[in-house]
Amino acid sequence: MKLATFRQDGPPRVGVVDPSGGRIWPADELAGEPVGDMLQLIRAWPRLRERLAPRGPGLDLARVALEAPIPRPPRNVLCVGKNYRAHAHEFTRSGYDSSAKGAADAVPTAPVIFTKAPETVIGPGRPIPYPEGVSEQVDYEAELAVVVGAGGRGLRREDALGHVFGYTIVDDVTARDLQARHKQWFLGKSLDGFCPMGPWIVTADELDPAAGVEVRCWVNGELRQEGNTRDLVFDVPTLLATISAGLTLQPGDVLATGTPAGVGVGFDPPRFLRRGDRVRIAIAGIGVLENEVG
Amino acid sequence: MKLATFRQDGPPRVGVVDPSGGRIWPADELAGEPVGDMLQLIRAWPRLRERLAPRGPGLDLARVALEAPIPRPPRNVLCVGKNYRAHAHEFTRSGYDSSAKGAADAVPTAPVIFTKAPETVIGPGRPIPYPEGVSEQVDYEAELAVVVGAGGRGLRREDALGHVFGYTIVDDVTARDLQARHKQWFLGKSLDGFCPMGPWIVTADELDPAAGVEVRCWVNGELRQEGNTRDLVFDVPTLLATISAGLTLQPGDVLATGTPAGVGVGFDPPRFLRRGDRVRIAIAGIGVLENEVG
Repeated sequence: MKLATFRQDGPPRVGVVDPSGGRIWPADELAGEPVGDMLQLIRAWPRLRERLAPRGPGLDLARVALEAPIPRPPRNVLCVGKNYRAHAHEFTRSGYDSSAKGAADAVPTAPVIFTKAPETVIGPGRPIPYPEGVSEQVDYEAELAVVVGAGGRGLRREDALGHVFGYTIVDDVTARDLQARHKQWFLGKSLDGFCPMGPWIVTADELDPAAGVEVRCWVNGELRQEGNTRDLVFDVPTLLATISAGLTLQPGDVLATGTPAGVGVGFDPPRFLRRGDRVRIAIAGIGVLENEVG
Repeated sequence: MKLATFRQDGPPRVGVVDPSGGRIWPADELAGEPVGDMLQLIRAWPRLRERLAPRGPGLDLARVALEAPIPRPPRNVLCVGKNYRAHAHEFTRSGYDSSAKGAADAVPTAPVIFTKAPETVIGPGRPIPYPEGVSEQVDYEAELAVVVGAGGRGLRREDALGHVFGYTIVDDVTARDLQARHKQWFLGKSLDGFCPMGPWIVTADELDPAAGVEVRCWVNGELRQEGNTRDLVFDVPTLLATISAGLTLQPGDVLATGTPAGVGVGFDPPRFLRRGDRVRIAIAGIGVLENEVG
């Protein structure tokens, strides 16, 4: 099932999406009760899921405005750094990586976890605000993101996927100059609007990152990133087990799993984003997230 | 004015504290209207502040249970790393610092910003949960924390203090093994209960970090840390200007400004915390925050 947050002449609602048929069904109408927002739907999922099978005509998907599926996560977005081998090498080689000394330690031996402020999240089609006067090295990072369903602490690797509600796409936009200058990456990752997310969440039963999911990214139509989640250095169960060892995961937590090779700073000379550039990310089985630098 | 979050036979309330007289006055009774929680008080501060002068007997401070002044920050706690020179050197020397190569780059040239999950926050007197099986290198870090009042983006250094609501104490508890292993510090800083905060917020008019505020920390009665905020590498206005350059600060944001020398990992051999250890932090003009490792 694909679940989106959308607006049509009113406050945001949650809906069940059929992208190929171009329809969206408001979840509260299907459920026969108020659903609230995506976080409330995630918490009520075991009770509601059977009632969300689409029926009736629904709404025209082209005539609603999609928002990020979780427009304002309840705490910072969790992110994984250098989680594809080729990207780990391109990033360390770039000279911007404060976390490694050279090729020998470029690929992490334990997951590198950092966060982005919740206010970085913007929806599909919304402009990524160019941080004039703050950064001159804005970069894209196409990523598969995990949305946590049932939270918990001390998840075992073999049980971890049972805690995944679904998957979505995230562009982990990064100010490379700030990322390098401040050593810890939070600031360079957390400029306002630096986390496009969407277009919707695909529930966990429909996607298997371990089987291999293609992640691709174009800038102005030019293919820049082409990766596959089977090449993750740390797979989704390992990430969830590692993080939850000491930190209780919460329903609605978003975890961006890292970006494949091909980011702007990986080129020589680097190819940073400029105003007007269009970043288009496609993940097989989910859909397309596209945002222009505004 | 000193403002606390407390409980007495019911849900948490906000109160005005007189520590020397041992009294606390519920803010809603003084204001003559519901105040809600500390975040709502911070937002309504310009309108409410005049009405919060204590009158009447109030409650016995010894008979209420204090909570963290902001029990659940709306997003991750902002933290500054290596913001006292002597601590920057002791930390780099310890071998646990993934952000520096040696003495030459031990002291940062730009603020090092990372975050702690909101669920790390615990109140005064509450046990710091020992993360059995997850970390064997738990350390204390006594810090002055800034609470943001009016948020904003692009704050100028000279205006930044006008955006400070007040100050409190934070113990930036850290799992050194995780901090080193995962390169980015978030995970080692974000174990459940790893951010004791309190005992209350002192409003900005009562404290001037630039004039020098003493920060001291004892473990089991032994003085370990003794610093002064006039030795901050990056002072409060610089921190707020740097962070807000690209990231809009929000009312109620908490910023821990860094810890002075004397943490456990600074000793040779390191002196990590064990179950039963009592960490006591005193900051002049604020008060005392004490927590036992549980």
